[in-house]
Amino acid sequence: MSLVDPAVFHPEPNPAYPPCAAGREPDLAALRGEVAIELALRHAGNRRVRLAWELQGAADAPVVLVAGGISAHRHLAPSATFPEPGWAGALAEPSRTLDPARFRLLGLDYVGADGRLDAPIDTADQADAVAALLSHLRIGRLHAFVGYSYGALVGLQFAVRHSARLERLVAVSGAHRPHPYAAAWRALQRRAVALGQLQCADAQGLSLARQFAMLSYRTQEEFAERFDAPPEIVNGRVRVAAEDYLDAAGARYVARTPVDAWLRLSESIDLHRIDPAAVAVPTTVIAVEGDRLVPLSDSVALVEGLGAHGSLRVLRSAYGHDAFLKETDRIDALLRNALHPHGEIA
Amino acid sequence: MSLVDPAVFHPEPNPAYPPCAAGREPDLAALRGEVAIELALRHAGNRRVRLAWELQGAADAPVVLVAGGISAHRHLAPSATFPEPGWAGALAEPSRTLDPARFRLLGLDYVGADGRLDAPIDTADQADAVAALLSHLRIGRLHAFVGYSYGALVGLQFAVRHSARLERLVAVSGAHRPHPYAAAWRALQRRAVALGQLQCADAQGLSLARQFAMLSYRTQEEFAERFDAPPEIVNGRVRVAAEDYLDAAGARYVARTPVDAWLRLSESIDLHRIDPAAVAVPTTVIAVEGDRLVPLSDSVALVEGLGAHGSLRVLRSAYGHDAFLKETDRIDALLRNALHPHGEIA
Repeated sequence: MSLVDPAVFHPEPNPAYPPCAAGREPDLAALRGEVAIELALRHAGNRRVRLAWELQGAADAPVVLVAGGISAHRHLAPSATFPEPGWAGALAEPSRTLDPARFRLLGLDYVGADGRLDAPIDTADQADAVAALLSHLRIGRLHAFVGYSYGALVGLQFAVRHSARLERLVAVSGAHRPHPYAAAWRALQRRAVALGQLQCADAQGLSLARQFAMLSYRTQEEFAERFDAPPEIVNGRVRVAAEDYLDAAGARYVARTPVDAWLRLSESIDLHRIDPAAVAVPTTVIAVEGDRLVPLSDSVALVEGLGAHGSLRVLRSAYGHDAFLKETDRIDALLRNALHPHGEIA
Repeated sequence: MSLVDPAVFHPEPNPAYPPCAAGREPDLAALRGEVAIELALRHAGNRRVRLAWELQGAADAPVVLVAGGISAHRHLAPSATFPEPGWAGALAEPSRTLDPARFRLLGLDYVGADGRLDAPIDTADQADAVAALLSHLRIGRLHAFVGYSYGALVGLQFAVRHSARLERLVAVSGAHRPHPYAAAWRALQRRAVALGQLQCADAQGLSLARQFAMLSYRTQEEFAERFDAPPEIVNGRVRVAAEDYLDAAGARYVARTPVDAWLRLSESIDLHRIDPAAVAVPTTVIAVEGDRLVPLSDSVALVEGLGAHGSLRVLRSAYGHDAFLKETDRIDALLRNALHPHGEIA
């Protein structure tokens, strides 16, 4: 197995990153870096892109890549070096399966997340970028790729294209293709952005897109519990109970997300397709009953296609597609089973 | 029972409408008219509004009011007089329960549907307008109010406020209150219109709102069957398989719908609330399992609240909220049971 694919790997010197040294004491501090690579994009030719990454946890521990939704980033959890909260913090702490003392945790910013690549980006491109990043970091093989939502799609592509670099995959709330209904929902979100862009109201368009996305991430049950108050009439217009929440969600998102990053990563979900039979590593598919974006039937179809490599775990959650981020106790238990299948790391 | 409520009834002469005459031969031709009434709007004070109506079928038959979604109108089905297709045509023809030879069918344009009332409109206002219209038409009592979607909400209000004028109610795909999740979905559709209005792109905003509404009316199953093709890249942008369909749906809607009509009737759904215990007429609630706007649990709660007056019929349909318009054989069978409970009109 070659650790470096010369077709995609053009590392730049990265003085911030000390190579792993056998026998070193475990170092729970975190490291960050960026690397420029040349990627042969499936739909847009050769492009030079920058990948930002963060490694956290014991330097000699098996490496687990944790990849989240299109809005996730390289900072998974707080550390001595980078103490701010991370997007996967509730799953990556000492009491959890993803304990940084047991695993070296790798996070990354997706290709396009900086908003500087205004071209169609495929999940295959992301998987190739991950392979190039592993080469740059001198990581031969991942103990596991834990992918949630968009991360599950990238993980599936990685398992198809770079199976020699992966021992096992955990794919949460993501399948072999986008569901046509979910694809339509995202296409309309992109149209909201386009409508805003007509008048240079990019932020308003992106905010509205995010608000529509929130409805796809959550469930009727949650809304029924939180927003059952009658509407008000404000300035002659009806305002329903959830609108404060949606306003806040839109504003938070706009403040941290370049419009082009969101557009291209949203598209990327809809470009995703893999042949499950081409996945040749043990794969745990975690599905959420009630996920409005990834119906259980698609997860079942994926697992059927995986054959002997696949197993399915299902949980029911009022958080729908967002269960990975919200049902952390139950997700942690499922991860424990998937990452320690024979109890070899007790 | 007074047929005329002086508080709301200010009829104008309507020469197009001949009063019902006992002993007249059945006349299957249709009649249309408009009447101006003064309504005490719940949230916007006294307003003079115009109501447009159409009557079709045997002049001496029991009258059934058929009221549809916010985009429905007075023309239910073709007749010799008005041969163009109607919105409920597949349910109102000789072989059906709603046979114009057996029932006199009444349709109407909702208050606000002409786009000339830019104020919050409550379903209670609509119910009062129906009562005034019945007085104008000298119809003492409806054999039935068959309401679908928004029509079900208006029917429930009518049953609460004007129960003496109603023998039975059939409420299809509508409940005692909007579900908070569905209300949020509609609120975002209204924001799409507002975003368009920022730049005088009202039509584009309304089109996008309609496209988002289409997703709430239909189901994942239908989209999976119709739109499973991979996306294309058109002018550097990803275009998913459902977008042609959504474009067409948006364009058709914009061509026939004033923006203010849509906005105010959309709001009206979210203003709706009734106490089911206040409904004092026999009511058949027809719920669709898979309706993304009116979950089965809300229909169950409605029927529980109706007590001895309520009964529930459930059907499963891949058409979701639109089942009334699509599953016409099954809906017809349910209507037959509801309108002829003892087989008295065989």
